[in-house]
Amino acid sequence: MKGPATPSSPAHRSVEIDARRDAGNAHRADAVAVEEPLEIRLLRHGSEDNGGTGRAISITMRTPGNDTELALGFLHGEGILRGPADVIDARPCGPTGNVLRVIVRADLPLDLKRLDRNFYTTSSCGVCGKASIEAVTATLGLRNIESDLIVSETLLRRLPDSLREAQPGFERTGGMHAVGLFDAEGDLLANYEDVGRHNAMDKLVGAALRTGQLPWSNRMLLLSGRASFELVQKAMMAGAPVVAAIGAPSTLAVELAQAAGITLIAFLRSDGCNIYSHPVRVRPNRVSA
Amino acid sequence: MKGPATPSSPAHRSVEIDARRDAGNAHRADAVAVEEPLEIRLLRHGSEDNGGTGRAISITMRTPGNDTELALGFLHGEGILRGPADVIDARPCGPTGNVLRVIVRADLPLDLKRLDRNFYTTSSCGVCGKASIEAVTATLGLRNIESDLIVSETLLRRLPDSLREAQPGFERTGGMHAVGLFDAEGDLLANYEDVGRHNAMDKLVGAALRTGQLPWSNRMLLLSGRASFELVQKAMMAGAPVVAAIGAPSTLAVELAQAAGITLIAFLRSDGCNIYSHPVRVRPNRVSA
Repeated sequence: MKGPATPSSPAHRSVEIDARRDAGNAHRADAVAVEEPLEIRLLRHGSEDNGGTGRAISITMRTPGNDTELALGFLHGEGILRGPADVIDARPCGPTGNVLRVIVRADLPLDLKRLDRNFYTTSSCGVCGKASIEAVTATLGLRNIESDLIVSETLLRRLPDSLREAQPGFERTGGMHAVGLFDAEGDLLANYEDVGRHNAMDKLVGAALRTGQLPWSNRMLLLSGRASFELVQKAMMAGAPVVAAIGAPSTLAVELAQAAGITLIAFLRSDGCNIYSHPVRVRPNRVSA
Repeated sequence: MKGPATPSSPAHRSVEIDARRDAGNAHRADAVAVEEPLEIRLLRHGSEDNGGTGRAISITMRTPGNDTELALGFLHGEGILRGPADVIDARPCGPTGNVLRVIVRADLPLDLKRLDRNFYTTSSCGVCGKASIEAVTATLGLRNIESDLIVSETLLRRLPDSLREAQPGFERTGGMHAVGLFDAEGDLLANYEDVGRHNAMDKLVGAALRTGQLPWSNRMLLLSGRASFELVQKAMMAGAPVVAAIGAPSTLAVELAQAAGITLIAFLRSDGCNIYSHPVRVRPNRVSA
């Protein structure tokens, strides 16, 4: 694929605030996480759809920066892109930098009907008239993640500190999520921050897609917040066998992880964790009581 | 309007987990916040659109319960509903309880083109080719909230404890957001919990719409998490002059609050807060340093 890497944009901006404290009030500057809309547009190579601008697929509220990765990761999570060869070009277009156009190979299979209406939200939850997990399989198909990855609990417990050290945006603003990618040894390979946790995940997936590093058959993901269905779904599409979260999971996230063969860990702390599915991949520190 | 109140559904469900702790491991039950899709459908009274089932407007991942309020609040936030007289009927339809159909009066103005594609996401961020706040005004219009409400900082600082005491779902699961509605004396009038913070806000707005209590000209809102653009937008549509958050704000949330005349407070704690816009409504405990 061609196309420049997205130029780096400031992830936070200074605003004037009134800080009210017992110790004294002050009018001062405060760093705030940047939130702006990004429209993702999709065009087949050689097509003149909408005068060559393509079709609006999704609009997301995101922190600018790594928008190309965000768009590619989003399209991978929706089952549209499988690898770097599917992408001919991806770059910002228009005056604001808030529109990103992805040109895909001319013969890429596209379910245009599914793209037509409520695409993004529909695909993240399936057809609501059906039972939850059936709905997922109806839209994106249920993957069965197979991996020999086994991690020690000791190693797992160290991941939150590693991720936290790599969150400058959160450190400055207190208002950004992060998703980190770790190898089996617990080394942090990549991570992204964003006001939207799904965007942070998309950026991580998109960066891996760009460089042909998917699926993540022996990688671990760590989410700085909660584990929702949507995040587990994106992890499933990327083939991640272990998904850990510092926050809580939802029922649908647990159900999807169970069905897809993903080890879902939540409330991960330095002194313990809860394992919600496929605990066999986590080697305990001690035998069960 | 007719239609039953949404029957109460369990907000959390017990799942079996492996709890790994230094003090000992255990296989035990854990309460997890329920997340399921809800499809909101809209039908004009007397219309046979889609065989009388109407048009799918939005799909959201929500915690079941108060789905009617969620749907009405969502449609209010999108500028479709103005008051209870706009709604003829609202109730779940279909076998799963995950589809909710709202029948509106036959002559309600509806911008069907805007509803057609990417409705929900588009409306929450406007047209991305424009500057941010212009985009808002282009889709929903910018409201100018006028209110004589003045609150003391002392009173404000007590609100997080009040809300926290009214969050049984969070207490059980650690995985639910809440939005609370307070009067000028700091009394909690209503609050809702949900895995999605925008859903909690929609439920609160919808409940007020149902009983003709909008706009909230002398009310305060408290968000258990961060203040995003989307939440401030919904608060603006509901006319709330004061929006406080326990978490961080985003730049776009601050810009919208400034433009709409909303007092936006974030990082609200028992020992202080930051005020990002229109501080005149907050009476300080002490003079500025």
